[in-house]
Amino acid sequence: MGRIGSLIVEGDCILGHEAAGVVLRCGDGVTTLRPGDRVALEPGAPCENCFLCQEGRYNLCEAVKFSGVYPDHGTLQRYKVHPAKWCHKLPANLTYSQGALLEPLSVVMHGIKSAGVSLGRGTVVCGAGPIGLIALAAARASGSHPIVITDLEPRRLAFAKDFVPTVIPYQISRDLDAQANANEIRKLFGRSGGSGDGDEDYFAPHTVLECTGVESSICTGIYTVRRGGTVMVIGVGRPIINNVPFMHLSLAEIDLKFINRYRDTWPAGMACLSGGILDLDKLVTHVFPLERAMDAMRLCSDVSQGSIKVQIVDEVDGAF
Amino acid sequence: MGRIGSLIVEGDCILGHEAAGVVLRCGDGVTTLRPGDRVALEPGAPCENCFLCQEGRYNLCEAVKFSGVYPDHGTLQRYKVHPAKWCHKLPANLTYSQGALLEPLSVVMHGIKSAGVSLGRGTVVCGAGPIGLIALAAARASGSHPIVITDLEPRRLAFAKDFVPTVIPYQISRDLDAQANANEIRKLFGRSGGSGDGDEDYFAPHTVLECTGVESSICTGIYTVRRGGTVMVIGVGRPIINNVPFMHLSLAEIDLKFINRYRDTWPAGMACLSGGILDLDKLVTHVFPLERAMDAMRLCSDVSQGSIKVQIVDEVDGAF
Amino acid sequence: MGRIGSLIVEGDCILGHEAAGVVLRCGDGVTTLRPGDRVALEPGAPCENCFLCQEGRYNLCEAVKFSGVYPDHGTLQRYKVHPAKWCHKLPANLTYSQGALLEPLSVVMHGIKSAGVSLGRGTVVCGAGPIGLIALAAARASGSHPIVITDLEPRRLAFAKDFVPTVIPYQISRDLDAQANANEIRKLFGRSGGSGDGDEDYFAPHTVLECTGVESSICTGIYTVRRGGTVMVIGVGRPIINNVPFMHLSLAEIDLKFINRYRDTWPAGMACLSGGILDLDKLVTHVFPLERAMDAMRLCSDVSQGSIKVQIVDEVDGAF
Amino acid sequence: MGRIGSLIVEGDCILGHEAAGVVLRCGDGVTTLRPGDRVALEPGAPCENCFLCQEGRYNLCEAVKFSGVYPDHGTLQRYKVHPAKWCHKLPANLTYSQGALLEPLSVVMHGIKSAGVSLGRGTVVCGAGPIGLIALAAARASGSHPIVITDLEPRRLAFAKDFVPTVIPYQISRDLDAQANANEIRKLFGRSGGSGDGDEDYFAPHTVLECTGVESSICTGIYTVRRGGTVMVIGVGRPIINNVPFMHLSLAEIDLKFINRYRDTWPAGMACLSGGILDLDKLVTHVFPLERAMDAMRLCSDVSQGSIKVQIVDEVDGAF
Repeated sequence: MGRIGSLIVEGDCILGHEAAGVVLRCGDGVTTLRPGDRVALEPGAPCENCFLCQEGRYNLCEAVKFSGVYPDHGTLQRYKVHPAKWCHKLPANLTYSQGALLEPLSVVMHGIKSAGVSLGRGTVVCGAGPIGLIALAAARASGSHPIVITDLEPRRLAFAKDFVPTVIPYQISRDLDAQANANEIRKLFGRSGGSGDGDEDYFAPHTVLECTGVESSICTGIYTVRRGGTVMVIGVGRPIINNVPFMHLSLAEIDLKFINRYRDTWPAGMACLSGGILDLDKLVTHVFPLERAMDAMRLCSDVSQGSIKVQIVDEVDGAF
Repeated sequence: MGRIGSLIVEGDCILGHEAAGVVLRCGDGVTTLRPGDRVALEPGAPCENCFLCQEGRYNLCEAVKFSGVYPDHGTLQRYKVHPAKWCHKLPANLTYSQGALLEPLSVVMHGIKSAGVSLGRGTVVCGAGPIGLIALAAARASGSHPIVITDLEPRRLAFAKDFVPTVIPYQISRDLDAQANANEIRKLFGRSGGSGDGDEDYFAPHTVLECTGVESSICTGIYTVRRGGTVMVIGVGRPIINNVPFMHLSLAEIDLKFINRYRDTWPAGMACLSGGILDLDKLVTHVFPLERAMDAMRLCSDVSQGSIKVQIVDEVDGAF
Repeated sequence: MGRIGSLIVEGDCILGHEAAGVVLRCGDGVTTLRPGDRVALEPGAPCENCFLCQEGRYNLCEAVKFSGVYPDHGTLQRYKVHPAKWCHKLPANLTYSQGALLEPLSVVMHGIKSAGVSLGRGTVVCGAGPIGLIALAAARASGSHPIVITDLEPRRLAFAKDFVPTVIPYQISRDLDAQANANEIRKLFGRSGGSGDGDEDYFAPHTVLECTGVESSICTGIYTVRRGGTVMVIGVGRPIINNVPFMHLSLAEIDLKFINRYRDTWPAGMACLSGGILDLDKLVTHVFPLERAMDAMRLCSDVSQGSIKVQIVDEVDGAF
Repeated sequence: MGRIGSLIVEGDCILGHEAAGVVLRCGDGVTTLRPGDRVALEPGAPCENCFLCQEGRYNLCEAVKFSGVYPDHGTLQRYKVHPAKWCHKLPANLTYSQGALLEPLSVVMHGIKSAGVSLGRGTVVCGAGPIGLIALAAARASGSHPIVITDLEPRRLAFAKDFVPTVIPYQISRDLDAQANANEIRKLFGRSGGSGDGDEDYFAPHTVLECTGVESSICTGIYTVRRGGTVMVIGVGRPIINNVPFMHLSLAEIDLKFINRYRDTWPAGMACLSGGILDLDKLVTHVFPLERAMDAMRLCSDVSQGSIKVQIVDEVDGAF
């Protein structure tokens, strides 16, 4: 039995919510898809009836059926039934691998849109894991500059620097507290160009994209953002966070924003990947056949292996 | 020696930042005021040069000279020199007492504008102290409905009910945790009218105006607001707050917003008071002459006296 | 045959889209309503499938079935079948007459929300017809002040002044052009209180709610709003408008916004009427039984009669 | 004597408002600059006192002194006195030529920020002149995709395609009206990738950046943008525009936005050019020495020469 927040897993549940594939058969009444269509799956099927769905905030629907969230089986299957509406046709130049990456990209796009990352304004990405790396790429593709990425692990920062060469990596120091790490991060913006009037805050980043969910990282982000800026909490960690510097948040008038998944992001995500605005291919560090899914899981959980995105592929005999 | 956050009081400092009065003399170069003009003071004089002033976010200026914040003396004086720009001419039908109330009203107006309180949408005001009561009046004047106000003290809630009769008071239970108090508050919205589809969140308030700065109240506010809603933290309490339910904030995609004082609020505040949109007179429960300022202070600090706003007045011989 | 824009009426079509009534029977699968429930109708039933519905902008759905818009029959019938989802349960203290007023109120609420009418900021309402009068009431209920309402007809302005006594009426002069009328309107804001620095724009209204759709009124509104303000075009007139002062719009950086009907407004509208935030009853100047619907129509079309809202009522034998 | 809108040129006035150079001497009290500093000029010096300056909308200041706008002389001089505050220090890796391009880039950045161009969403740029080309580059740098640029002249479109190879050029047909041209433009989005459900509007661009100020182009833009989208009018043409399709604007709920110059854009613009987010160098098609300024003017006014940006340079003996 497992648990995340109020979600309790009480029985078997196939995992998986980042997926793309080919349509094999359509139910009666499906008019938008045909067998042979290549699609990326949006894994959640909201109720389409509650007031949140009606307002367009379908990502907040409490009756959503989400692939891989108990009791709804996920996408790590050879065959999967999925509502046609949430199967997005892939442009011809996108692979299934890219199609599957649309799911984590969607998380990031929803966060970036709500955070207001913008052209020529600085951003800090906290955490160089998969979501942090995609956030880095998406912030760069949105024209943000300068961008600093933070992590505890030099290897992850090196990967980030290789992935987006213009980024400035910052290794979080375990010997410094949140405020002191924040001060070091802010200095990197001062050094990275632009005019100014001696005011440190003038250079400080407008936006922090927090992609770890870890308390110390959240607090560092809050101390790092400029006065009047936005800290977008994308990462989800423990249910309760302590030591949140509310007085600083008040004095600096910071917006602390949160997201839950995504809405309306597949079309924009496909446009980005298909049009060459974003290239996330390097993030797929390992690929396994479906039969070796357990090996893939083991690899992911062994941090010493340095995997980023591990994908599982399957080929259907006689498919298109 | 005293301290609020990073502010340390290292010497004598006259208090006071809610003030109105008559112009006695003008410096050379003052063109907008004449002796005899009745004015309300905006107590902070920002530097008007830094990038935050230039962007219009002058409330975030770090070089502001603020009346009553060390080392700048406040308004509890017979005569006060103040920059003409931050002296707002009072409309003829406003009293000095009303003029002084523009300062706390400004805090509330800045918060309400940023929070997006709107016509026919529900609001919770946490805390029935002076700021909470003004927030209540301003939310009502903005057309919010229903409005619930919370407090631990029945006497304060009774004052609130008398002040704005359509409000629904809720006495916070010390026996319940934040989530349980929130559940009780949400039920009050369900009862207060409107259609619906059985979804509890459908009735839940769009906005929470947190006016206490107290940890338990902040957490209660977070659990109370509807999915996708906004919690505006107006009250400032301890520098660090613990037990903040981040996972709930993420799942419900709540905006947690903060303000620092106000900007551009005196004209709108004057329009409200002058035009009868808001009537805050009942909040002034006690008035003292300047000579008895210490008695006024003592009264304020004795919670058993039930004072809300205590004003100190002075008459200048031969003045207008 | 009639026509509005691209809509062509090619056959019989019962009119009516402002309605409330009692539920007589429910179809299978209806869980949210029961016979005897009193409901207000939201007259459009969007497809709930297109991308606009999915984004929550269901008011822009091109496949909407709208009561009274050919080929969908309207509400001027004794019995009407309507999707349960778009029947909003009336609070106990609202009448059917008030329920029917939720439709024009919804137009206004959608416009006001998008326009950003706010507490203590000035508004001009162009046009004192039914929509203009509701806009006036809603702007007042939102805390806007001062409010000026304009019209060519003194009788309509007198009605407006009686309806909302704090409004400032302005009779548009046929002898003045748009800019000259605008100058006169702006002067009314200068006179109506508040501080200032001699800058005429300082007092000018933040928002113009254009409720006529008439070219001269639109242009007057554009010249009236303050620099950086918003002109919300609620009224719909001719398909093409000439003489739009684009250079002025650019120099003053004005947002020119438009709305199409409404979305998510019934709950908020009901909260307003039920909670006493808005009282629109005076707008119903005449009531006819269903059998005399033609007389009602004739009355509406005869401007000399001074009708505002003419309602048609019907009683069902044996109903609840 | 010349005229633009209400501005009348009544005497000699040196032109020029796109400039960069080296600081030769500083007035007393200047603390932020030293001789030898390389700077880009923000050409307008607002009053910093009016309510618009105070709100941060200093671009709307009516008392602005703007270089090259009568009676304030412009930058086409060997020596120019300019307020230190509006001299932005150039990063070391930017040339004076790039520094001068910050002015038109600022116009575009202000427009793009207000229009909400965003990652993976489509944009149409109307007009392939200097502002249109910069808008194209900035929209691309903001992650917009697909982007269509329109113009009457094939040569300009070819330049645009060479400048930003992923753009889709569309030659406006003089034989088609605005609506028909719009239909052709919308088809280009359908062809350019992404999934969909057969709804034409699904692919239509979210944003139109109108960079011509010409009536037919404005109208085409309005018919092109998707329902609920934004048309940002950047170009300024005739004072009065006719034939504006208001009913379509209403039915499609389009925001028609306008800008006047820019505010707070130099830092972001410098970050873009310095950080390699934007490369505008190709736009400088011709360079003249100051002594041949008249030749530069003649070249610009001869459209057959195909100049885009013509810069005038001067070297000061013994300068840094």
